[in-house]
Amino acid sequence: MVIILKNNPDKAQLSNLMGWLEQKGIRIQETTGVSRSILGLVGDTASIDIDALRALEIVEDVKRIQEPYRLANRKMHPENTVIRVRDTVIGDGGLTIIAGPCSVESEEQICKIALSVKASGATILRGGAFKPRSSPYSFQGLEADGIKLLKKAREVSGLPIVSEITDTEQLPLFEDVDIIQVGARNMQNFELLKRLGKIDKPILLKRGLSATYEELLMSAEYIMSGGNKQVILCERGIRTFETQTRNTLDITAIPILKSLSHLPVVADPSHSTGKAELVPAVSLAAAAAGADGLIIEVHNDPEHALSDGPQSLKCEDFRLLAEKLGTVVGAMRQNKA
Amino acid sequence: MVIILKNNPDKAQLSNLMGWLEQKGIRIQETTGVSRSILGLVGDTASIDIDALRALEIVEDVKRIQEPYRLANRKMHPENTVIRVRDTVIGDGGLTIIAGPCSVESEEQICKIALSVKASGATILRGGAFKPRSSPYSFQGLEADGIKLLKKAREVSGLPIVSEITDTEQLPLFEDVDIIQVGARNMQNFELLKRLGKIDKPILLKRGLSATYEELLMSAEYIMSGGNKQVILCERGIRTFETQTRNTLDITAIPILKSLSHLPVVADPSHSTGKAELVPAVSLAAAAAGADGLIIEVHNDPEHALSDGPQSLKCEDFRLLAEKLGTVVGAMRQNKA
Amino acid sequence: MVIILKNNPDKAQLSNLMGWLEQKGIRIQETTGVSRSILGLVGDTASIDIDALRALEIVEDVKRIQEPYRLANRKMHPENTVIRVRDTVIGDGGLTIIAGPCSVESEEQICKIALSVKASGATILRGGAFKPRSSPYSFQGLEADGIKLLKKAREVSGLPIVSEITDTEQLPLFEDVDIIQVGARNMQNFELLKRLGKIDKPILLKRGLSATYEELLMSAEYIMSGGNKQVILCERGIRTFETQTRNTLDITAIPILKSLSHLPVVADPSHSTGKAELVPAVSLAAAAAGADGLIIEVHNDPEHALSDGPQSLKCEDFRLLAEKLGTVVGAMRQNKA
Amino acid sequence: MVIILKNNPDKAQLSNLMGWLEQKGIRIQETTGVSRSILGLVGDTASIDIDALRALEIVEDVKRIQEPYRLANRKMHPENTVIRVRDTVIGDGGLTIIAGPCSVESEEQICKIALSVKASGATILRGGAFKPRSSPYSFQGLEADGIKLLKKAREVSGLPIVSEITDTEQLPLFEDVDIIQVGARNMQNFELLKRLGKIDKPILLKRGLSATYEELLMSAEYIMSGGNKQVILCERGIRTFETQTRNTLDITAIPILKSLSHLPVVADPSHSTGKAELVPAVSLAAAAAGADGLIIEVHNDPEHALSDGPQSLKCEDFRLLAEKLGTVVGAMRQNKA
Repeated sequence: MVIILKNNPDKAQLSNLMGWLEQKGIRIQETTGVSRSILGLVGDTASIDIDALRALEIVEDVKRIQEPYRLANRKMHPENTVIRVRDTVIGDGGLTIIAGPCSVESEEQICKIALSVKASGATILRGGAFKPRSSPYSFQGLEADGIKLLKKAREVSGLPIVSEITDTEQLPLFEDVDIIQVGARNMQNFELLKRLGKIDKPILLKRGLSATYEELLMSAEYIMSGGNKQVILCERGIRTFETQTRNTLDITAIPILKSLSHLPVVADPSHSTGKAELVPAVSLAAAAAGADGLIIEVHNDPEHALSDGPQSLKCEDFRLLAEKLGTVVGAMRQNKA
Repeated sequence: MVIILKNNPDKAQLSNLMGWLEQKGIRIQETTGVSRSILGLVGDTASIDIDALRALEIVEDVKRIQEPYRLANRKMHPENTVIRVRDTVIGDGGLTIIAGPCSVESEEQICKIALSVKASGATILRGGAFKPRSSPYSFQGLEADGIKLLKKAREVSGLPIVSEITDTEQLPLFEDVDIIQVGARNMQNFELLKRLGKIDKPILLKRGLSATYEELLMSAEYIMSGGNKQVILCERGIRTFETQTRNTLDITAIPILKSLSHLPVVADPSHSTGKAELVPAVSLAAAAAGADGLIIEVHNDPEHALSDGPQSLKCEDFRLLAEKLGTVVGAMRQNKA
Repeated sequence: MVIILKNNPDKAQLSNLMGWLEQKGIRIQETTGVSRSILGLVGDTASIDIDALRALEIVEDVKRIQEPYRLANRKMHPENTVIRVRDTVIGDGGLTIIAGPCSVESEEQICKIALSVKASGATILRGGAFKPRSSPYSFQGLEADGIKLLKKAREVSGLPIVSEITDTEQLPLFEDVDIIQVGARNMQNFELLKRLGKIDKPILLKRGLSATYEELLMSAEYIMSGGNKQVILCERGIRTFETQTRNTLDITAIPILKSLSHLPVVADPSHSTGKAELVPAVSLAAAAAGADGLIIEVHNDPEHALSDGPQSLKCEDFRLLAEKLGTVVGAMRQNKA
Repeated sequence: MVIILKNNPDKAQLSNLMGWLEQKGIRIQETTGVSRSILGLVGDTASIDIDALRALEIVEDVKRIQEPYRLANRKMHPENTVIRVRDTVIGDGGLTIIAGPCSVESEEQICKIALSVKASGATILRGGAFKPRSSPYSFQGLEADGIKLLKKAREVSGLPIVSEITDTEQLPLFEDVDIIQVGARNMQNFELLKRLGKIDKPILLKRGLSATYEELLMSAEYIMSGGNKQVILCERGIRTFETQTRNTLDITAIPILKSLSHLPVVADPSHSTGKAELVPAVSLAAAAAGADGLIIEVHNDPEHALSDGPQSLKCEDFRLLAEKLGTVVGAMRQNKA
C-alpha cells in the first residue's frame, strides 16, 4: 500500500499516523519529493481500511498494491481448484457443459430436456425455480415445486442439478440441490453470501451486471471466508451502452479471472447475448478463451417457454453446438500439448 | 405494443398469434409494408410477456409503447405522492434534509450528530446498522445494537430515523424504524421488495449502480403491488467509466423520474461522489434540479469514522451547506411563484 | 510515480532501469517488502512514458501520482483563467449564457433568434454551420454560408459568435469567428487540436462521450502546449447504459474540473438530455453546481428545425429559463458572500 | 417507422403531418388505441429525419423499424464482401492475420518484424506512422518517414501494408499505402470519412470506444455512400467501468456485425486488452467467434518499444499464437463442413 501525502502535512498528524501503522506491525518507508511525499507500507495491509486512510486530512490518496482478496487469490493458492459434483468435475482442464431451461415448467418439460441435453454431452442440468424477474407481473417460477421437479429430472437422467437461490429463507429447500447458483442481481447480497459460506456445497457465483473483477472476487471471498471453498465464478455479461444485445459478454474476464484466481470460471452465453442465434458463436469463443465450462439455456419448445424464450436454444441446435464445441476443445487440447 | 414481423411470416403461425392476442382482449391493427409488416396492439398489454413474443419464429422485434409500471406511473396518478413521517413530510414541494453518519458507531457519536444536524436544519436522521461492505474483512456495522442506538438518538433529538435493511430476516428489528432503506446493491433483491410491500412504512429505495429508470420504477412497483404505496426514490449515482468519483450522479434522473412517476425523489450526494469536498456543489445542484430531499453523510469526526470517512461532511461544514441550500430553495420557490 | 516490481526481479535489469531513471534526473527511493518491492520516483516524471515502464519484464505495475497535464493544471496556475470575447467574459465568477440554434438555417432565422436570446440575457450566439451528423443522409449544415449568416447575426445583434469546426481544412473560414468549438466527437482529433494551439482565439472544447476528466484535460493540454491558453471546457453528457436521455450529464464534472484546472467550465444541457422539457432543470442544476456558463439550444420554430429540434427551447421558454437562472445565480452569489 | 402520438393530438397538426408524409411517398396506417394512437409508416423512410418528427408537439415518440444504413446492410447485399489486397484476401471465410509494431521506429525494426511475422503466417503488415497519443508530450510517430519505412518493409517482405491516417491533409502520403486505417478516436471524424469515400482503397474502420453497432455501420455508410465499398470493420474494445483491462473486447460484436452487414469483421486483441499476456486467449476467442481477421501488435523488443510496449507480443510468442490459431481455424472449418 502506498500513501501519497498532501503538501506540507501537519507534523503531529503525520507522526500519529506513522505510530498507528507501526503498532499494526506495518513497516513504513518514506520517499520525500519536492512537492509531495509518499509512504510505502510493507506488511499485512489487507486489514487496513483504505477509506479510513483516505479520510485523513494529511492524505491526498492511497493506492493499493496487493489485491484485497486472499482466499480467492491465485498467489496464495497457485494450483487450480477442481470442483467435483457427483460424477462430474469443473476446473480440471476440460469443458463442463451445464444446460437446461431458464425455468422449470413441468415434469414432462424438465425431464425431456434433461435426457436430451445429456445425450448431447451436457453433464449438469440447470433449471430455475425462483426467478428474479424485473416485473412483479411476470411469471416468478414454480418455487418449491420447481426444485422438486428438478430432483425428479436428476433421478431420470442421472445429471446433477444447479438452481438459483434468491433469499436466505429458501436455504432449506436447497439442501439436496447439487450446486446453488447466486444470480447477478444478488452478487452483492452479502447476507446471502455469508450464509452460503457456512454450507458444504459448490456455489456458482454470477458476476453482477456492473461488477468489477475485484468485486466478483471479493464476493467469492465472502463465501470462502465462511469456510466454503467451492466457488465457481461465472461471466454472464456486463451492462454497457450497446442495446442490440441484452448484455456485453466480457470475454477477457475468462483469462484474467483465471490468472487472478485459482477458482474455475464458466461463461453464460445465453443471458449475456439474450438471443439464441448468437449463442453458438459466443460459446465457441468462450471455450477458445479457456473457460472451464458453459451454462447454456436449452428448451424443447422455446416459443412456449414461460421465460427467456428468445435466448434458448432448441434441443437439436444445442446438439449441433455441443458437437462444434467438441472440435474446438480438441483443438485447444492440441494447443496445450 | 408494436410487433414487427419477419419477412413472409408463416400464415398458420401468424393466425395463431393473432387468435391468442384477441383472446386476451387485445385489438390488433396490421400495417403491411413492402418488406415487413407490423401489428399494432391496443388494450391492456402490461400482462403480455414481451420476451414470449420475441421468441416466436415469425417475430423480428417487439417495441413497447406503454410503460410496464402501473402503480408508480404518473399517468395513473397525476398528483404528487406526499409521504409523512412523524412531524416531517417528503414530496410536498419543499426540500427535506436527511443527515447522519454512514455507520452508527456509539451512543455518544449518534446522539451528538443527531442534535447537531437537527440544529442545522435536517429533519430526518440516517445511520447504518447493517453495512453492505464489499470486503468481508471490513467493519460490518453494529447490527441490532446499531438500531437500538439509533432509537436512542431519536429519543434525544426527536428526529425520525432511517436505516438500511440487507436481508428479509432482519425485518423484526426494523419494526420501530421510521423509514426502511433498500440499498443500491439490493434494488433487485425481489424477495426483500415483496416483503417490504406487505408492511405499512415508507421505503427509501436506492437506484442500483447500473439500473435504468424503468428498472428502478419496476422495483418500486414490486413494493407497491404488495400494498405499500409509500416509496421514496433515491438517485445515488451510477457506475460509469470515470474513476475520479466513486459513482456518477445522474442529475437528469431527478426531473425525469418526477415526470414518469408521482413518487418523491431524493438525491444522495455523499455516496455518488465519494468525496466530502464535492458534496456541497452536488447538493446545491440536486436542489436546483427539483429534488424533494437530500440524504447527506455527516460525521462529528470523519477522520476516525469506521466507514466511508472520506465522503462525510463535518458537522460545521454541513451547517454551512444547509444554509446555502436554504438560499437556493428560496430562489427555486421564487421561480415557481 | 511509483513502480511496483515483480517478485525477485532480475538484478541486472533492475540496475539498468535505475541507471536510466537517474540519468533523467529522477531520484529513486526503494521500499523492500516481503513479497514485493516498490520504487518511489521523485522529480519531473511527466516526460516518462508510463507504458514504456509497464512493458519492462521486471515491472508489475506503475502508478502515477502527479497528473500528466501541466498547463491546464490548477496546481501550476492557482488563479482562474478568465476569457474575454468582445464585451463578454467567461470565468469571472458569473454565469455566461451562450444560446442559439443547433444549425444556422437562414438569415431570417439566425438574426431573429440572435435578437431574441440577447433580449433574454444571452451574451454569446451559437449556431452550427458544419454539422457532424451520424447519418450521411441527414442535413450536413450550410457550411461556409452558415458562417456568413452567423456573422450577419453578429452585426445585427452585437453578440460574439461561436461555431463548430470539424476539419483542419476549414480553419480559414473561422478566421473571423469569435470562439471555435471542438465537438465531442473530435475531442481526440489531435491534429485539429494541434492546429488550434497555433491560433489566438478562445476554443470551446467539449468532453467526448466516453472521455475521462484526465483525457479532457490532456486534450486541453494539446491546445495549450501549442501556445493558445484560451480554452473553455464543456461538460455535455457522457454515454451510459440509460436510454431515456440522449446522454447522461455528469454534474460532478463541474466542481471537479474546476478544482483540477483553472480553465472555465460550461455545461450543455441541450445535447446531454436531448429533450427540451429537461433543459430547465438541468440548466438550473449546472448553475447551482458552479458552472461558469451554459450553452443552450434555442429555436424560433423547433418543429421545423433542420436538426436537433426535440432538444431546442422555444424563444419564450428560454426567456423564462433565463429569468429563473438569474434568481439561482443571485442565490449562489449570496452563498459566497 | 412507427410514430406514437400524444393523447388527443391537435387535428390540424395531425393532418399537416400526414399530408407531408404522403407527399414524400410514404403510406400511413393508423392504429387508434384507448389512450394513444400510433401511425405505421410504409415506404422509404431512411430519408426522414427521426429527430424532426420527435420535435413535433403532437408526437410522443418515434421508433425506427428499418436500419438507417443501406449500403452496409446485409439485407441489401446478402453475399459477403471479399476484399483483395495484393495477394491477400479478407472476408473469404479464412482468418487473415495482420501483424506488426504499434509504431514504426526504424528501418531495421520494421523490416525485421515484417520478415518475422510473415514467416509465422501473417499476410499483412501493420505499423503506425501518425500516432494519436492522449498526451502531447508522448512520442507522436515518425510521420512521413514512418510511411517510407513501411514501404521499405513491404519491398523486403512482400507483405501489403496498413497504417493509420489522422487528418485529411495526410491523404497524399497514403497514396501508395495498401489499406488505410481509421482509428477509434476518428470513427466519427466525418470529414475524413467523406474523403476516404472518394478514393479506391480498402479502409480498416475501427469501432469507437463508445460507439454502438449502428454508429459503426453508419460510419461505414459515410465511406460507402461516397463510392468506396471496400470497408473492413474492426472491433477493438469498448470503454466500460472495468479498469484492469484497457478496454473491453465485445466478442458478440463479431457475429452480430456479420449478421447485420456483409462487410468483413476483424478484431484487435492488442488494443482492447492492453496486456500481451491476454492477447493469445482473446485472439483464439475472436477466431472461434467467426472473425475474418485479427490485427495483432508484435515487436522484436517490446521493452524498448516507443509506444504501447505492454501490449505487444514478442516475435516468438506471436509465432506460437499463430500456430494455435491454425488449429482453431482448422476446427472451425471442420465445424462448417
